[in-house]
Amino acid sequence: MNATETYDDFCLRVRELSDLGHAAGMLGWDQETQMPKRGAQGRASALGTLAGLHHEKLVDPQFADLVESLADSPLAGDLEINVRETRRAQLRAMRLPKQLVVELSRTQSLAHEAWVEARIADDFAQFRPWLEKLLSLQLRVADAVGYEGSVYNAFLDEFEPYARVEQMGPLLEQLRKRLVPLVTAILDRQRGPDPSFQCDWDIAKQEAFGRQVIGDLGFDWDAGRLDVSVHPFCGGVGPDDVRLTTRYQADQLTSSLFGMIHETGHGLYEQGLPPEQAGLPVCESISLGIHESQSRMLENMVGRSRAFWQYQLPRMQEFFPDQLRNVDVEQMYREVNRVEASMIRVEADEVTYNLHILLRFELEQALVAGEIAVADLPGIWNERMESYLGIHPANDAEGVLQDIHWSSGLIGYFPTYTLGNLYAAQLFVQARHDVGDLEAQFARGETAPLLSWLREKVHSRGRRVTATQLVEEVTGRPLGIDALMNYLEGKFGELYDL
Amino acid sequence: MNATETYDDFCLRVRELSDLGHAAGMLGWDQETQMPKRGAQGRASALGTLAGLHHEKLVDPQFADLVESLADSPLAGDLEINVRETRRAQLRAMRLPKQLVVELSRTQSLAHEAWVEARIADDFAQFRPWLEKLLSLQLRVADAVGYEGSVYNAFLDEFEPYARVEQMGPLLEQLRKRLVPLVTAILDRQRGPDPSFQCDWDIAKQEAFGRQVIGDLGFDWDAGRLDVSVHPFCGGVGPDDVRLTTRYQADQLTSSLFGMIHETGHGLYEQGLPPEQAGLPVCESISLGIHESQSRMLENMVGRSRAFWQYQLPRMQEFFPDQLRNVDVEQMYREVNRVEASMIRVEADEVTYNLHILLRFELEQALVAGEIAVADLPGIWNERMESYLGIHPANDAEGVLQDIHWSSGLIGYFPTYTLGNLYAAQLFVQARHDVGDLEAQFARGETAPLLSWLREKVHSRGRRVTATQLVEEVTGRPLGIDALMNYLEGKFGELYDL
Repeated sequence: MNATETYDDFCLRVRELSDLGHAAGMLGWDQETQMPKRGAQGRASALGTLAGLHHEKLVDPQFADLVESLADSPLAGDLEINVRETRRAQLRAMRLPKQLVVELSRTQSLAHEAWVEARIADDFAQFRPWLEKLLSLQLRVADAVGYEGSVYNAFLDEFEPYARVEQMGPLLEQLRKRLVPLVTAILDRQRGPDPSFQCDWDIAKQEAFGRQVIGDLGFDWDAGRLDVSVHPFCGGVGPDDVRLTTRYQADQLTSSLFGMIHETGHGLYEQGLPPEQAGLPVCESISLGIHESQSRMLENMVGRSRAFWQYQLPRMQEFFPDQLRNVDVEQMYREVNRVEASMIRVEADEVTYNLHILLRFELEQALVAGEIAVADLPGIWNERMESYLGIHPANDAEGVLQDIHWSSGLIGYFPTYTLGNLYAAQLFVQARHDVGDLEAQFARGETAPLLSWLREKVHSRGRRVTATQLVEEVTGRPLGIDALMNYLEGKFGELYDL
Repeated sequence: MNATETYDDFCLRVRELSDLGHAAGMLGWDQETQMPKRGAQGRASALGTLAGLHHEKLVDPQFADLVESLADSPLAGDLEINVRETRRAQLRAMRLPKQLVVELSRTQSLAHEAWVEARIADDFAQFRPWLEKLLSLQLRVADAVGYEGSVYNAFLDEFEPYARVEQMGPLLEQLRKRLVPLVTAILDRQRGPDPSFQCDWDIAKQEAFGRQVIGDLGFDWDAGRLDVSVHPFCGGVGPDDVRLTTRYQADQLTSSLFGMIHETGHGLYEQGLPPEQAGLPVCESISLGIHESQSRMLENMVGRSRAFWQYQLPRMQEFFPDQLRNVDVEQMYREVNRVEASMIRVEADEVTYNLHILLRFELEQALVAGEIAVADLPGIWNERMESYLGIHPANDAEGVLQDIHWSSGLIGYFPTYTLGNLYAAQLFVQARHDVGDLEAQFARGETAPLLSWLREKVHSRGRRVTATQLVEEVTGRPLGIDALMNYLEGKFGELYDL
């Protein structure tokens, strides 16, 4: 075979893997949104088979030889990226002993069940041995796949490829130092919810308004859809089929809406990936952090801006004319930007949110470094909640047991949420510089110029750059905390008269 | 390996194939009910990959050796059936040259497109060369896979395993002879639609009532769901996840309802298959004809009975109180059993329906035997419509071009519809004998005794018997036309004062 034929053969095989991913992705989406109750067992079996076939095809020795020979040949551009990323995934898969994969998968299922029980019973002791076992298995995984520097990098790399805790750690430490005083100052002036919003909000109208907003923001309904799931997410199978989910609460006017806007941010990223590389690594997102930057920017910098509500409040009033007749833009803006010291990460506002993340990131690093034991987690968790947010969980269910991540063996995932906020803020400053007065545009309902900029600078690039490269190329400087902190200090300084 | 280990290994591999079928089934269902417009290309690729992997795994030489050695060893009961049916599928797949499979698949897609165009343009000549090509490819398939007796058996066997045209042909010929005079007599007294039903029927209410009826009939909503698709079908992935679809028309009160009842019949069969054999051939349906018997029995013998409406009309009146206030059971019963000479098979009543099928069955046999050419189809079609139903299609779009089947290369599928009606009638006579006065039960809303009987006699047996065996074992006699003709002559003789 000549080089072109070899690469064509490579693409065929990678697209076959991608098709298996398509099937698994759809079955997963269906499971969360459509599947009848009793379908769970058959679905688990089908997903297991697809995962097994994916692994078998990925580590197939003939394919490994093909990828290796391509990796050793002079490639450039998209070819190079596609081969490099496939090689990374292949090496990782080949280095994992099958026995370890099976044990990890089994332990994840059981640990997840144990976590569900422990959380209901508010009894960390029930979950502790499972987390200990998961941690020790994940450390064996890290040893098997290999890493540079800290062992934490092996975990991080799964979610934020090429990231290094040696760079990221100090950055997030700076963030914490500058964030805690802001949070403290705001919480001194903490106010309760506005009673104007405490009533019942018809769910059909919430959905209709939400769909209108999603469309306003540029989501292509011919290449995506919206459904209901217990935990909102953005799934799908490439730029042409992106699936958002949300959940509705009748006593909350904007909770579902901001969930929809958040997932729309993810969805716009997916719809903007380079279609000409569909099924190949170049048509994938760069990292979870960059993905989160798109959802956070849309949710917070767009959706929680005063300008957004100048345009959308009158439109929302058409859906709820009686209840919203006397609400004005300022009132809405203040309500959707209320800061509270709260126990639960997923309900936190955009200021305190990062402290929830930093706490988890610090505990994870200490755990994998062996500096603390699993048994120490509840105590340290509660101490840090006290020192960062001034509140103390009443029990472990609203403390260390609240998140699903660790129960599924996901270590190194949490920091991507805060990285997302940092990326978002720095990109947004640049967008304002390049595109002009974004807020004036938002006030006229025009988010298309921002979307065009994101399409060009981020989405359409696919995986052609790493997260670090993207930020530096687009904003002209390395990732820092100033953009996010300036944004938060400016916005909330005004809101809370600091 | 000892025999048990060999069988266990066999089951693992068959369940892996079934899991691939699960994935393909779900992607197919999603495509018809959920997928956004632009998702088609990616979906086609994923389905192609799954089909390829299924084939690869099915014909894997190691697996073929395993199946062959099991087929040669003394097995009984479910083990024997599972091995026998897997062997049948495997031999068929192994006998098909890959080149032929690829050419057929490509031609099917193109022929389908050509059919869509030809139907819109009402121009059979556009479709003719494609149907000629499909026919010649399908004849090559028949030669490759082999058959006993008539070549038509090779086609039939795909849909109605173990059926033989040598037995079935004369039976359907008898049916035609007895049916044509009945149809003629009824059409002499043909009456138009009852104007009481010519108004707008709110679609949300149609759906709500339909869901209630589906539940009344015993469909387990924890193991299934209902969605909307252009062409109604029953899909899903085994007894625990059965997916019905329907479509709604605002100017039709019962069209969607009978579609739902029909698909519920299919769905109840699927939900009643033996779960302990899930993923193995024993947990599959016997044939398309037996499947159709379940849907037809529910749609016609239950849903179009006077007793059914004695119970359901008052309930339907709760959904449409103003429009149905003055409608009585007799009026509804007559309206849902109106017989008409009509051009379109899918809209035909239960008396004329079988003539639509017999016409197609006769043309198919003549085609594959080389007695007529594709070019002759429109003329012969129109002649037979004239002689069977006394009507003449105004054009080929409402004549020979109306069905999708031939455009997808499906030859031998049509007769399973009429077989379904014959099975249904003969089983229903036996059910009445075994269970008692079914109509008195239906009038009280009790369809559960009939369902229990079907569960025991048909559904739970899975594929442990062939269609012929099932009919003989359950009803004590071979399949005949008397039960269906007696049912039709009795019911419509009374309705039309014959």
